[in-house]
Amino acid sequence: MNSPKNRILILGGGFGGVYTALHLGRMLTAREREEWEIGLVSVENYMVFQPLLPEVVSGSVELNHVIAPIRRMAPQARLYTREVESICPETRTVTLSPGVRPTSLKLAYDHLVIALGTQLDYSKIPGMREHAHPFKYLGDALFLRNQLVGMLEAAEAEDDPEERRSMLTFVVAGGGFSGVECIAEMNDYLREAVRAYHRIRESDLRLILLQRGERILPELTESLGLFAQKLLAKRGVEIRLGSDLQSVTAQEISVLDRASGKIERIRTRTTVATVPAGPHPLVTALPLPQERGRLVVDQKTAVTGWPGIWALGDCAAIMQVDGQMSPPTAQHALRQAKTCAGNIVASIRGTEQRIFGFTGLGKLGSLGRRSAVAEVFGLQLKGLVAWLFWRGVYVTKFPGLSGQIRLLADWILDVFLPRDITQLRLFHDDDVHREHFEAGQQVFAAGDVGDKVYFIARGEAVVERDGAALATLQRGDVFGEASLIAHQPRNATVRAVGSLDVLAVSRLAFEQLIGQLPGLHDTMRGIMEARMGRRVDLGSEIQHAEAARRAQPGPEPARAPVNGA
Amino acid sequence: MNSPKNRILILGGGFGGVYTALHLGRMLTAREREEWEIGLVSVENYMVFQPLLPEVVSGSVELNHVIAPIRRMAPQARLYTREVESICPETRTVTLSPGVRPTSLKLAYDHLVIALGTQLDYSKIPGMREHAHPFKYLGDALFLRNQLVGMLEAAEAEDDPEERRSMLTFVVAGGGFSGVECIAEMNDYLREAVRAYHRIRESDLRLILLQRGERILPELTESLGLFAQKLLAKRGVEIRLGSDLQSVTAQEISVLDRASGKIERIRTRTTVATVPAGPHPLVTALPLPQERGRLVVDQKTAVTGWPGIWALGDCAAIMQVDGQMSPPTAQHALRQAKTCAGNIVASIRGTEQRIFGFTGLGKLGSLGRRSAVAEVFGLQLKGLVAWLFWRGVYVTKFPGLSGQIRLLADWILDVFLPRDITQLRLFHDDDVHREHFEAGQQVFAAGDVGDKVYFIARGEAVVERDGAALATLQRGDVFGEASLIAHQPRNATVRAVGSLDVLAVSRLAFEQLIGQLPGLHDTMRGIMEARMGRRVDLGSEIQHAEAARRAQPGPEPARAPVNGA
Repeated sequence: MNSPKNRILILGGGFGGVYTALHLGRMLTAREREEWEIGLVSVENYMVFQPLLPEVVSGSVELNHVIAPIRRMAPQARLYTREVESICPETRTVTLSPGVRPTSLKLAYDHLVIALGTQLDYSKIPGMREHAHPFKYLGDALFLRNQLVGMLEAAEAEDDPEERRSMLTFVVAGGGFSGVECIAEMNDYLREAVRAYHRIRESDLRLILLQRGERILPELTESLGLFAQKLLAKRGVEIRLGSDLQSVTAQEISVLDRASGKIERIRTRTTVATVPAGPHPLVTALPLPQERGRLVVDQKTAVTGWPGIWALGDCAAIMQVDGQMSPPTAQHALRQAKTCAGNIVASIRGTEQRIFGFTGLGKLGSLGRRSAVAEVFGLQLKGLVAWLFWRGVYVTKFPGLSGQIRLLADWILDVFLPRDITQLRLFHDDDVHREHFEAGQQVFAAGDVGDKVYFIARGEAVVERDGAALATLQRGDVFGEASLIAHQPRNATVRAVGSLDVLAVSRLAFEQLIGQLPGLHDTMRGIMEARMGRRVDLGSEIQHAEAARRAQPGPEPARAPVNGA
Repeated sequence: MNSPKNRILILGGGFGGVYTALHLGRMLTAREREEWEIGLVSVENYMVFQPLLPEVVSGSVELNHVIAPIRRMAPQARLYTREVESICPETRTVTLSPGVRPTSLKLAYDHLVIALGTQLDYSKIPGMREHAHPFKYLGDALFLRNQLVGMLEAAEAEDDPEERRSMLTFVVAGGGFSGVECIAEMNDYLREAVRAYHRIRESDLRLILLQRGERILPELTESLGLFAQKLLAKRGVEIRLGSDLQSVTAQEISVLDRASGKIERIRTRTTVATVPAGPHPLVTALPLPQERGRLVVDQKTAVTGWPGIWALGDCAAIMQVDGQMSPPTAQHALRQAKTCAGNIVASIRGTEQRIFGFTGLGKLGSLGRRSAVAEVFGLQLKGLVAWLFWRGVYVTKFPGLSGQIRLLADWILDVFLPRDITQLRLFHDDDVHREHFEAGQQVFAAGDVGDKVYFIARGEAVVERDGAALATLQRGDVFGEASLIAHQPRNATVRAVGSLDVLAVSRLAFEQLIGQLPGLHDTMRGIMEARMGRRVDLGSEIQHAEAARRAQPGPEPARAPVNGA
């Protein structure tokens, strides 16, 4: 237990949480700050300036220029860079998960501000968690950018026209602000970047925006939405209205056309899903009043019936003075933070609290390359004017002068310099991860290099050679181990019968596990002996294959395993 | 097989390889380029401008401003962004490893240029591979930067003085150019960054440079080396001469003092090792003449006895006209590339070849914050003059005008803006990875959160509770599973008896593997039943513990497993 003085504990490092800490630091006197710790819990030590995230994809703004260090924004606060493990309103404590050292940290609080936002909800669409790219966090923007360059690199070297087409097809699901801004930047970026590739023409690119409703940007008036629609179409984005994403796999997606009821499969290796935001699991687990996963608070941002607990931002349901529910935007979270900080200070001092009186200034959406749409002060702006307004708003809203200067410098250089096409491959697949396949899809094909072994978690798969089915595999079955162990190409094709989920284990992890886990070693040996019809010594098999592979100068594989792909 | 026309195939995306491609593109006529493909194989689609890598650590230069896109540098070349799997001089083919699709690619060549550089050699020092940070690739610089911020964040929240000290101790092993430049930038960065942390004073920081020899920068004259030594010491770097790194673990290193023969253990969580560069395994596997892991080439950069095969850069042993061996620096690789490209063109045209006539312009090393040392044209420069010269040389040497502009912009902004203290946590531990411990060290302590399960690969460990040894574990034994499965703190301490290597498997990977791998599941159940003395159903055990943990509002763990830590 760590309680040196009274503590106001703020959970969440987004706009809501950070600005509450910032305002508290300014409102409390130096004397009061000796009595009260302003604690802020955030997984990261920076706040992401979300509106600029799409610009990271195109490289107009550098990755670390869309974030602001929390320690400099709210220097009066004590920052805990950890995850929240649990919240206990009964004992007025919050437990933080381990940091560098493997020990939890328990913090007592006098005031608690919950500003945890929402979490991505992958549960609705099969394969979404495994194969769709989210677009919410900073890492997502960098990942997506590298994915775009990676696909250009792969397509440049690919000779199979169908594979090539799938590499050059990019899909964004969700036609709200986030999806539209994302595909606009992807489009700008890709159409300029292809020029550095000899074998890709701009017309080979296919960018698709899937929107469930009948027009994009439903947040704006119809005329602005239609303007955006026309502009994106003119710039080469294929907009599919009334389209529902049904499933995602590594190589294709299924899309339902709501009008015709038909399902189309689109081959693509890049699916960005901006749609689903679900309630934060820590919030739903709380014994506090909730409405559709959001905490019910009064107009002072206080949680009804729980004195000392406050909530704001996307995880709170706050009624505005105009009778509308406060929408989940940065401008609202910023002002709720000020109201909340003021009311906490008032409650400490015993003075009068205020209500949240803000009803929104307007809405802004960038369409890339010198165009935007905006509704502000009752005016509708579009095109270059809206874009200049958009940039002006965001540079002035960016926290801190040094951040604003960096942003301006990026924007100035961006006018003159070509797009960066370097691919920073900082990410790698987890050693042990899940993959999803839909009916008929290949997990791998005969002749492929065998770099993973698979275990079926759900569904069935069929092993085929020369078009004939050799075996059907079910939950718990393993496949792909022989080729991996012998360093040989796959000698059969494995295909999903229906919807299929597998656990894939990388070569390195598998070889290490086989070496150390006695149970796994024996089971794998049993399976392989049954399949190969001879005695197997896995350890020497791996070493022997490795040595043979290194020594072998010839062009063709010397031998193929008898079975087991 | 992919052979549309004649092919000059260059292996390696460093200075040597990229500049060979660049010069070939310029030297060959348009007509000749129709006949000859200039193929370049590089894992990344960019070239790292190595001399600026240390500046990424301090943030003076943005991460993606120290790299240059190969496609723009050498637009006439065809770039293959893959790894080289094998080289076969007998059949004149090179096999590239799989890219996005799981198929290898085999390329025939007429001329082969080997410019693969060196590879890090981790084999000499126990624990180096598992726990030391290399400093060679772009990712290393980003990783190191984030590690520095991560340690500040951890130390800010840490109350245990000894743990805190180990978090604030940073070690660089190797006192050559690379190590000196690295620690200088780390030092500058940390001393400025601590100002954003309330609870860390600058005097809490400890930066140690380990050097085997009797002075740093042995590449330079003694007076420049001593100047650098004094300056770094004045700026707070602790320089240990005559010191050998003996072992590295996650929490401490052992250092041998060569004079006294004593071994000291230094607690630190950050060890950067710049020392070891070994021959590239693809090079040593070749049937070509070699000298200490480098390919023997004549002064035309041709491999002796193998017409059509050329080698240059760090993987080649080239005698200079002055009788010295050409050193492994960028300035030499650049000029070797020009010689090599010219000679390939001459050999195609049947004209006369030239010899490599360059003997070096000088040597430069940055010491951070407006100071450097240099030996150029027989002059010795130091301090601000050398530093201005250093920046001038590198900005003009940087490939491409847009890269030069970006670099200048960074340097200008760096003068005015504070250091960036955001921590981009893009990396994570592998699910399945190795860890090394030295005698007496704790793998984990009673009370720690249990987030990994361990399998002993080499050595012995002892299980202790309340100071008493409960059991000794050996190769093949598993430990730490009970706490992981039950979501309870460790109920015992496990400690290395001698030198210990373990395979650590993360919670997520372990739970997934247990669910899918029948052999592992049964073995683990057997082990746990023997330890706990009751029937165990692992699947429901995991689910039950998970549910209990989520539901449980109380502060203390409800129950602890009987054994197995």
